[in-house]
Amino acid sequence: MIRIGIYGYGNLARGVEAAIKKNDDMELVGVFTRRDPKTVKINTANVNVYSNDDILKFKDKIDVLIICGGSRTDLPKQTPELVKYFNVVDSFDTHAHVNEHYNNVEKNAFETKHIGVISCGWDPGMFSLNRCIMESILPDGNTYTFWGKGVSQGHSDAIRRIDGVLDARQYTVPVEAALEAVRSGKNPNLTTREKHTRLCYVVAKDPKDYARIENEIKTMPDYFADYDTTVNFISQEELDKNHKGIPHGGFVIRSGKTSDGIKHVVEYSLKLDSNPEFTGSILVAYARGAYRLAKRGECGCRTVFDFAPRDISRLSYEELLHNSL
Amino acid sequence: MIRIGIYGYGNLARGVEAAIKKNDDMELVGVFTRRDPKTVKINTANVNVYSNDDILKFKDKIDVLIICGGSRTDLPKQTPELVKYFNVVDSFDTHAHVNEHYNNVEKNAFETKHIGVISCGWDPGMFSLNRCIMESILPDGNTYTFWGKGVSQGHSDAIRRIDGVLDARQYTVPVEAALEAVRSGKNPNLTTREKHTRLCYVVAKDPKDYARIENEIKTMPDYFADYDTTVNFISQEELDKNHKGIPHGGFVIRSGKTSDGIKHVVEYSLKLDSNPEFTGSILVAYARGAYRLAKRGECGCRTVFDFAPRDISRLSYEELLHNSL
Repeated sequence: MIRIGIYGYGNLARGVEAAIKKNDDMELVGVFTRRDPKTVKINTANVNVYSNDDILKFKDKIDVLIICGGSRTDLPKQTPELVKYFNVVDSFDTHAHVNEHYNNVEKNAFETKHIGVISCGWDPGMFSLNRCIMESILPDGNTYTFWGKGVSQGHSDAIRRIDGVLDARQYTVPVEAALEAVRSGKNPNLTTREKHTRLCYVVAKDPKDYARIENEIKTMPDYFADYDTTVNFISQEELDKNHKGIPHGGFVIRSGKTSDGIKHVVEYSLKLDSNPEFTGSILVAYARGAYRLAKRGECGCRTVFDFAPRDISRLSYEELLHNSL
Repeated sequence: MIRIGIYGYGNLARGVEAAIKKNDDMELVGVFTRRDPKTVKINTANVNVYSNDDILKFKDKIDVLIICGGSRTDLPKQTPELVKYFNVVDSFDTHAHVNEHYNNVEKNAFETKHIGVISCGWDPGMFSLNRCIMESILPDGNTYTFWGKGVSQGHSDAIRRIDGVLDARQYTVPVEAALEAVRSGKNPNLTTREKHTRLCYVVAKDPKDYARIENEIKTMPDYFADYDTTVNFISQEELDKNHKGIPHGGFVIRSGKTSDGIKHVVEYSLKLDSNPEFTGSILVAYARGAYRLAKRGECGCRTVFDFAPRDISRLSYEELLHNSL
């Protein structure tokens, strides 16, 4: 059994917790929180919640620690620090700071002989892996990434900060015509804006504010101003009933040619009922990979680019040849 | 530069040859044929065609030999024999004999310290890799593979052997309703037959034979009898004009859940203008991988399950983090 610890306990951590139950070679050793452990209720029987402060007591009781903090302020500190004592996996997704994060984790992981896997969700993560492989097998071509249909937490938060807004949910939606143009092998030039629209469901205090709120959303710089944005006002009941989930998904498409006039389109897509549960499942599969790399004496920072499929599979090589080849 | 040899020179080999031109870290050293080399014209300037009999003279001039023989009779002999002298890559696709082939290649590769990569096309190959990774990240679910729309050479040949048939082309076509049922997360039970129909274009000597030929096709055991089969009679001109290509493609779909009622669908699909050119491109990417594994002292038989994405990429790790993550 691979002994897993969960560091932090929000939506993503609950996704990791659910994923551990689906992998019979894994066991959850404990959940670590910065809150008062007595106030945190988890979904696994007979597993305790501990304070973050006690994590080092588990140095020899955890094979891989899955760090479930946020990319903005938590992971840049937590992952380089915790990799000094544990093999760790995170889902760091701030692309602009990946190099810095990689170097910080690499240094400490290497010095202390641990494995630190970073950026291990679906984008970055599964999408990165697919971009890399697609580009390797079709070097002459273009890669396109589309996100959605899915909930963007940051954009939902931005709407909620508008005066008079009680609640809101924002979906990023890929533009079907852009998807089709890419799939047809036309190799169009498309900006992120041309590939996506933004769909907003808003609960407002007073219908008299609808026009002002809609205008404030549609003109909000960076978030909405440059997108084709739709605003729907609904009741709190309707929002709670129809927009409670955290679905997401997306597409990576490589369109390339191998000789004059001979085109190929490779597509990888995700349709997810729950973004955190799917991301949690990926973290758990790569925790297995981290465990195996550490077992064979490797150390340092790793990403999805470093793992062979067999490293993350529950199956034996014989089973892989028989079942999956 | 990675020095590549091509062993055998049919459609697949021409695909490999085209792919080498798209990879600037590769050079073609020579093409080896069982035919009289003087009768074989290749598509690369300043590269010679040699007899298979001369292959051992190139022992120190080729880094990776890509073997382009057929799976039925060529590869079972060629790959285990040639891996004694070269790092090799093949696209062996006879699933029932993969274990035997693996063991034969493993033994000789290990003893002589070479890398032998087998079954390295798109199915087996890219589809296998995706099945493995999808199953690792979504352990509770079902995997579905659909083939097509694409030309099946074996089925086309079977039609051509019918008395009175001059030429024929058979397409395997995925059933759209079955695809949609799978994508919806319904997890249907589907046989290969329920997932595919067969579409035949036939040129016959005499219209009087149409009814008999159609009947012979539709009742042909193993090949057509159990499928929904459509037969269209066309002229040789129309066949040459519209059915000359060797397109193919397919879908791997994993539908799984991470907790009660929370479903996810992962899909990988290919739409290929030329089956052999795409397969050739994969062989070339994994030739790069074989070269790197051999460089770091590994030996033995390998499949797509053994290669990390970085092993097959032209990009440096820094570029991967920057461009593909």
